[in-house]
Amino acid sequence: MTKPPVSSVSIVRRGPDGEEELDDLVVAEEPLEIKVGFGPEEDRKQKSLSVTMRTPGHDLELVAGFLFAEGIIDEPGQLNLLEHCQNVKSEDERGNVVRAELAPGIELDLESLQRYSYASSSCGVCGKASIEALAQLQCGSFPENEPSGFDPEMIKDLPARLREVQTVFRHTGGIHATGLFDLEGNLLLMREDVGRHNALDKVIGAKFLKGELPLSATIGFCSGRLGFELVQKSLRAGLPILAAVGAPTSLAVETASKYGIRLYGFVRDGRLNEYLNPVR
Amino acid sequence: MTKPPVSSVSIVRRGPDGEEELDDLVVAEEPLEIKVGFGPEEDRKQKSLSVTMRTPGHDLELVAGFLFAEGIIDEPGQLNLLEHCQNVKSEDERGNVVRAELAPGIELDLESLQRYSYASSSCGVCGKASIEALAQLQCGSFPENEPSGFDPEMIKDLPARLREVQTVFRHTGGIHATGLFDLEGNLLLMREDVGRHNALDKVIGAKFLKGELPLSATIGFCSGRLGFELVQKSLRAGLPILAAVGAPTSLAVETASKYGIRLYGFVRDGRLNEYLNPVR
Repeated sequence: MTKPPVSSVSIVRRGPDGEEELDDLVVAEEPLEIKVGFGPEEDRKQKSLSVTMRTPGHDLELVAGFLFAEGIIDEPGQLNLLEHCQNVKSEDERGNVVRAELAPGIELDLESLQRYSYASSSCGVCGKASIEALAQLQCGSFPENEPSGFDPEMIKDLPARLREVQTVFRHTGGIHATGLFDLEGNLLLMREDVGRHNALDKVIGAKFLKGELPLSATIGFCSGRLGFELVQKSLRAGLPILAAVGAPTSLAVETASKYGIRLYGFVRDGRLNEYLNPVR
Repeated sequence: MTKPPVSSVSIVRRGPDGEEELDDLVVAEEPLEIKVGFGPEEDRKQKSLSVTMRTPGHDLELVAGFLFAEGIIDEPGQLNLLEHCQNVKSEDERGNVVRAELAPGIELDLESLQRYSYASSSCGVCGKASIEALAQLQCGSFPENEPSGFDPEMIKDLPARLREVQTVFRHTGGIHATGLFDLEGNLLLMREDVGRHNALDKVIGAKFLKGELPLSATIGFCSGRLGFELVQKSLRAGLPILAAVGAPTSLAVETASKYGIRLYGFVRDGRLNEYLNPVR
């Protein structure tokens, strides 16, 4: 059993009946640096691709999911190595640097990576132009018809099922989760992270590393809101159904509608919204 | 009056009493590209610095706040120009590209920008090493003593005061907000955005452009959770008090504690937590 990613803090809790000093738990947040090795065997290069704030745990899945979502790799065989760096400069870095060695022949388009760099809440590829680009990245299929055996009513049960296994949320009240469910609503996999995008990258990365993509006949359920980038990642992983406790954005609805992903929002208290049509 | 940043969509709402098809509103999300011009007058260069998903509106404040938060500029006089690009390649880009011309002499450290590029939910500078670096960026002062005239009890009223002016949230249920309040709890400024970081960048950017930083004797109140990067941005802007409806992370508590920012979380239903001590 690994240590849960929480830290203990001292707080003053002020309620209607006065204040008290006590100990409380907060969710762990630490930077993760992703280093990528690439190029032909005789001339390997290394590049620090990203520093992202994340909750420690399932780091290799996070990195695999991230590299896959960005279209850098398409299958697990393209990763020659994926591990935490042992050779770190300081103790703070220990466990917070992951090294991915791409198979020779896998290109790293530094120009494009740089172009989309440095965004406040972004995952790289962005915007309308890149919605078109997704058609090339897409590895799943999204049939027009209802996946057989799928009853949307069942989605109403997913928040409770997800919450049952959200250990860190129970302790801290401050962490996102993504669950993968089959079409009968059985939980397949759950990951927690301070970042919504990271939680989805972790579940997709876990499936990627097992060679289990695309995620056909699967429902992705997110604890937060649904922005464009979550739809984009789902599309890339072939996830046909995406649902969330929170609201979707205009571009999330538009992208899901365009590519035939079924989108459900405000799934809470026995209710849900299904988003039907292109944004007007 | 500008058009509110919402889009109309068709939904099927499934409740306990059956389903109905109706129209609903979702919050607008579109990519914003930040282009920066820099270098000596005789040899100007241009760089696409970032593409971020944001809710349209107050874009110039967002860009100014972003450039300031990242330490690229320190005062409004260092921006020779800040405007939406008129010369765009496609209609989709119109209104979604902002150009910032830095005064000659302002350096753009592309190496460092690139290093921290491409992160899933990041704003550039990250992690423990960069906490140290913040000491140099910091422009505010954080006295050890209670700011005079400040009563923490008053913070309990801020969620209701923020909600009163959250127009887009009222229509869509899916957007973050950051409010700036004075020490008596009067609202000074409010901005909404799909991204938590963007909402804070917008309020800080608005104050920056008016030459009103550092934000002494001010409370920042956020609708969501408090991660490291929000504390980092507050520190940079000199904001001495940061509060939120949601939970803080370990690194948020640690950073706030180290630099003397007062941190309040779970501000809801007449309760709040004040975070006291370094994380253990």
